[in-house]
Amino acid sequence: MLFSQRYPVRFRDTDAAGVVYFAHGLALCHAAYEDSLQAAGLDLPVCFSPAAPLAYPIIHTTMDYHRPLHCGDWVVITLHPRQRDESSFEIVYHLSLETSPPRAVADALTRHVCIDSRTRRRHPLPAEIQHWLQRWEAPGESET
Amino acid sequence: MLFSQRYPVRFRDTDAAGVVYFAHGLALCHAAYEDSLQAAGLDLPVCFSPAAPLAYPIIHTTMDYHRPLHCGDWVVITLHPRQRDESSFEIVYHLSLETSPPRAVADALTRHVCIDSRTRRRHPLPAEIQHWLQRWEAPGESET
Amino acid sequence: MLFSQRYPVRFRDTDAAGVVYFAHGLALCHAAYEDSLQAAGLDLPVCFSPAAPLAYPIIHTTMDYHRPLHCGDWVVITLHPRQRDESSFEIVYHLSLETSPPRAVADALTRHVCIDSRTRRRHPLPAEIQHWLQRWEAPGESET
Amino acid sequence: MLFSQRYPVRFRDTDAAGVVYFAHGLALCHAAYEDSLQAAGLDLPVCFSPAAPLAYPIIHTTMDYHRPLHCGDWVVITLHPRQRDESSFEIVYHLSLETSPPRAVADALTRHVCIDSRTRRRHPLPAEIQHWLQRWEAPGESET
Repeated sequence: MLFSQRYPVRFRDTDAAGVVYFAHGLALCHAAYEDSLQAAGLDLPVCFSPAAPLAYPIIHTTMDYHRPLHCGDWVVITLHPRQRDESSFEIVYHLSLETSPPRAVADALTRHVCIDSRTRRRHPLPAEIQHWLQRWEAPGESET
Repeated sequence: MLFSQRYPVRFRDTDAAGVVYFAHGLALCHAAYEDSLQAAGLDLPVCFSPAAPLAYPIIHTTMDYHRPLHCGDWVVITLHPRQRDESSFEIVYHLSLETSPPRAVADALTRHVCIDSRTRRRHPLPAEIQHWLQRWEAPGESET
Repeated sequence: MLFSQRYPVRFRDTDAAGVVYFAHGLALCHAAYEDSLQAAGLDLPVCFSPAAPLAYPIIHTTMDYHRPLHCGDWVVITLHPRQRDESSFEIVYHLSLETSPPRAVADALTRHVCIDSRTRRRHPLPAEIQHWLQRWEAPGESET
Repeated sequence: MLFSQRYPVRFRDTDAAGVVYFAHGLALCHAAYEDSLQAAGLDLPVCFSPAAPLAYPIIHTTMDYHRPLHCGDWVVITLHPRQRDESSFEIVYHLSLETSPPRAVADALTRHVCIDSRTRRRHPLPAEIQHWLQRWEAPGESET
């Protein structure tokens, strides 16, 4: 199964060039990541609280921008995560405009490592993240 | 009729105190303003483009925070606009948590003036904004 | 003594209308608040960490915008705090453009309450905040 | 010559994990890019206005995060740009903590293409950008 959801482009996300500020494109991707966690049954207020025992900081990110986004556009974000090793995973995002046919807007990637919030040392991915990975992971995938 | 819609609280909106950063509360209100325009038939990419002949800059804003918001919360924003004079309007926002019973989270106000984008001089509110005002304006209202 | 410092307006703070997005004006004020704390000897990483025993959430804010700000502008922010009661204070901000003569850009106010981070109950202002208040408080002041 | 400048980490840049939100790291880099343009004599309000005839949208970005940043930290950003072809350039950023010895915090890259703002077609880099490239470009460089 693929996680896919539509997101509105807000005025706050635009800049004086009239289009979405590049770094805010990554914030849109993170919103989709949050929704994919919630859709797999995870409790966001618990995952993303300062008191959470585990955290998933991003250690690497990439984004390719194919087309500008404007306030009022709706962008469809499709993502799938995959495990990298015992304590890390990455997520691939495809962004497209909700037109017919859809037009590719951007592609992005975030790489996360699971750490103990207190010691900030690597920690094996817990069962709930394993579950989320299986829920949205593309079968037989082989992207770069 | 009242404009009312639910909004997710994103991780990007939180700060190191674990709750929503105060100024981002106003960005949530602005999102509801955008949606109320769109729901009244206005074309956002046209309204909020650098090339738009008219603009509606905010000249005053107030926000009262009653309760913190956390990542993963859903907040219901209810708004109603009202005309102030020939070229300005204001919007009152109520934010509450989607709990039962709902709990008040914040109240806010934004005051906007219509200007000619080129000269930046005041301009009477155009028909489409008048229409939006009538669509969501509370009948017989008398708030401060 | 008055706290006063100059701040650059960044591209990220602008929106598709070509000027600073209204809510980001408050973020500029908060930056000046942070610098005024640091200039009074407070340790920011400690004050604003999730583990800090006390927090100072904003319960009310107001901003009046007199003139638009553009990317590349430098804005001078002058602030002074004042105590309201045993556990709260407010800060008044004046923003002006670094031109000669300076031109008023905006005025803002933030009202903070000191709370115990764990219980989220009101807590008397600690000595270091008292010190910061005395350092920047205007003598014999009587603003609204 | 190398462009290098120190930047404060603001509370607005942190998230509920207590550290800088990943996408805001790229906004810090963009601030350094803006300052490097200004230091080479370019007029930012002109470069980054909706009315500017040329624009430099980012078509690709990468960031590697080695260490978390906290509110109150000062980060030194060193950057150097290099031309890619007639109408594009990229910028490499190194971020380190102002400690002794300095500790590497992150590395980033942004790739920009020069376009005509009206037609959004590629346009050769103008003289002022060539000048900026020469001002900060590393001699004999060969990074990836």
